[in-house]
Amino acid sequence: MKIRDMIITPIAFSDPPLLNSWGVHEPLALRCVVEIVLQDGTVGLGECQGGSLRTDQLRAVREAVIGQDVFATSAIEERIHAVLGDQTVAGGGAVGMPRMAVRGVFAPIEVACLDAQGKLLGVRVCDLLGGPVRDAVPYSAYLFYKWAEHPALDGREPIGDTWGAALDPGGLVAQTRALIDRYGFTSIKLKAGVFPPEQEIAAIKALAAAFPGLPLRIDPNGGWSVPTAIRVGRELETELEYLEDPVLGREQMAAVAREVSMPLATNMCVVAFEDIPDAVARGSVGVVLSDHHVWGGLRHSLELAAICRTFDLGVSMHSNSHLGISLAAMTHLGAATPNLSYACDTHYPWNLTEEIVRPGALRFVDGSVPVPDGPGLGVELDRDALARQHEVLLRSGRTVRDDTSYMRRVEPGYDPTLPRF
Amino acid sequence: MKIRDMIITPIAFSDPPLLNSWGVHEPLALRCVVEIVLQDGTVGLGECQGGSLRTDQLRAVREAVIGQDVFATSAIEERIHAVLGDQTVAGGGAVGMPRMAVRGVFAPIEVACLDAQGKLLGVRVCDLLGGPVRDAVPYSAYLFYKWAEHPALDGREPIGDTWGAALDPGGLVAQTRALIDRYGFTSIKLKAGVFPPEQEIAAIKALAAAFPGLPLRIDPNGGWSVPTAIRVGRELETELEYLEDPVLGREQMAAVAREVSMPLATNMCVVAFEDIPDAVARGSVGVVLSDHHVWGGLRHSLELAAICRTFDLGVSMHSNSHLGISLAAMTHLGAATPNLSYACDTHYPWNLTEEIVRPGALRFVDGSVPVPDGPGLGVELDRDALARQHEVLLRSGRTVRDDTSYMRRVEPGYDPTLPRF
Ligand SMILES: [Mg+2]
Ligand SMILES: [Mg+2]
Repeated sequence: MKIRDMIITPIAFSDPPLLNSWGVHEPLALRCVVEIVLQDGTVGLGECQGGSLRTDQLRAVREAVIGQDVFATSAIEERIHAVLGDQTVAGGGAVGMPRMAVRGVFAPIEVACLDAQGKLLGVRVCDLLGGPVRDAVPYSAYLFYKWAEHPALDGREPIGDTWGAALDPGGLVAQTRALIDRYGFTSIKLKAGVFPPEQEIAAIKALAAAFPGLPLRIDPNGGWSVPTAIRVGRELETELEYLEDPVLGREQMAAVAREVSMPLATNMCVVAFEDIPDAVARGSVGVVLSDHHVWGGLRHSLELAAICRTFDLGVSMHSNSHLGISLAAMTHLGAATPNLSYACDTHYPWNLTEEIVRPGALRFVDGSVPVPDGPGLGVELDRDALARQHEVLLRSGRTVRDDTSYMRRVEPGYDPTLPRF
Repeated sequence: MKIRDMIITPIAFSDPPLLNSWGVHEPLALRCVVEIVLQDGTVGLGECQGGSLRTDQLRAVREAVIGQDVFATSAIEERIHAVLGDQTVAGGGAVGMPRMAVRGVFAPIEVACLDAQGKLLGVRVCDLLGGPVRDAVPYSAYLFYKWAEHPALDGREPIGDTWGAALDPGGLVAQTRALIDRYGFTSIKLKAGVFPPEQEIAAIKALAAAFPGLPLRIDPNGGWSVPTAIRVGRELETELEYLEDPVLGREQMAAVAREVSMPLATNMCVVAFEDIPDAVARGSVGVVLSDHHVWGGLRHSLELAAICRTFDLGVSMHSNSHLGISLAAMTHLGAATPNLSYACDTHYPWNLTEEIVRPGALRFVDGSVPVPDGPGLGVELDRDALARQHEVLLRSGRTVRDDTSYMRRVEPGYDPTLPRF
């Protein structure tokens, strides 16, 4: 069945002021929805990061996708590579994108093709990937230091949310309790690199005391020096199931890995197949956090899982701010990944006020998302909501995510240079 | 859709007296056909090596497969692992099979499940694997030193064939010409390790002269010492596209790889995912010859291909004596493998007098097999032929392949110890 059309809809949705090692989330998160329309009218859905760069890349490959067989996703990836590998800039120079960038463009298209395949055939996406090995996929409570509200700027009122502030151990414990009450999570991840390590160590120890038995992780996004990372790793030896990207780069990660007892995890120093040989040779990481948006879709993510199995590395899943199409795709992938070693990350609980898929298909039960029942991804697009969030993007004029500049409007001297501590 | 039955039919078919480094092919090759029957009567086909050990293993897991969802192949693999991992012998000791052995049992079951899925959904197996990146899969002319006929034994007459003898360069050139005339092959592989290396070097040089421009390979199946392999590799520097398993083991292969200019290929020292880390660390090989019968089916073979892509290794395909179900599976896999670097091996031309699939679906065009059009694997079982070949097996009383013992009945002092040269 051939692809008749590919519809690209950039959107924006409300995001709370979540802090990280390079700034703070802006009031709007950017996302892009890809619809693959087949000749018979069947529509498959994909979702990826937003911003004008990605949206333009998707538009650039649209003609190369239209007319292709929806089952021929590997061939479609090659066509996308051919288009983007041949891109030239105004000056005439070749700026062919490397493979890993092509995979980011291919990812939502592959997911949309798999969704369309499933809808066409009446089977779930996980059934097209070797079938589920679990009925529900566990996610972790993803804690953030956060402000109580987005500050008043540009003549606009402050934007509050129901979560309130979390700027110390007590605030994080309260946030965790709220997340667990609502979603039933049974493991916990703290986005760190925001405050001096002593404060973040205290936060982890407070969480360990408040939620005994729940696995804990901390992710400073490369915010620490090697000595700091080793010190934190040793101080949290009994508390952490893994330590995520404490430092930048595979060489520094390997230096830390040699000195701490827990595995190091990453979604920063191993982000493409091309990074794996060096990481394996150095022993940089013990867990790779896959992300189908980055690795080129669901099948490539299963390849990554197979590589991790082969090289005795754990597998879990990274997340960015996302909506329901991505959560459905992540859940089908997680269900079909035999060696999913840890609960996956998701930002989903932070964004539940706006959604572009119809309610009912996605829910959390004891911290896990059951695989949706319906064919394909099992979620249906709410076209009114999609149009609304597209309008939100257009009105905002936003074209790029920039946590650092936003932070600087509040804290002018903010310096995002890493490592900070 | 649930699996209602799994039918296991061991068979035998005529095989010519093909020579290799541990003896000679017996008059009958052993094979096993697996049928996965769904609740609605849909039947999926798989084929694997024969012999009572494999047949017994398949029978042992039959109950664990029946009742499962045909799409849940990863879960089925886990169930098979659970059964065979728990096997105990009469004495009570645990003899759980290692993962790679489990994969051999799983392989024909996975292929049969994929065939059933495709027939159920009306799509080809390659469409369930990311789609084809090529319409036809190239195979190589697989040359063997061979006798003119199976000798008279056990009161039986000699068994001749249409190929005649090939025991010197001239015989191999004639054999190649016949294979190319009939199938159009555009690359050539010689099964070697039979005669002293000087004779086999002369054969390759004769082939290079007779078929200029056609890529050549030689595979002595570990029959050479490291110094012999280095010497042969250097003498055939301009003739060989790769040198296959010249020596035994990953350490010796690495020692040869450092001293010759062409890549080394293997289906002997890297036969499971568990072998890959060591092979990568040592630099033992440049090309892995996948084999879905060994690696655990089509999806695991694609994982192997992804690993090879990641670690900058070539991929091609190994073969044993096989029939049309396997050729169809190999072809769908080859069509869906983006980084298939070389023409695949197949024994198929040697076995065309007996077949268990109906004619028409499989054919060679210019040395390649076009992907069959029909749903699933695109081949249909000839039940009369299957019953006939099952009878052939039963009448033969054969339970195991043993090229060495057969050779010793002709040449009593034959010593299969490797390396021979
Ligand atoms: Mg991270
Ligand atoms: Mg071989």
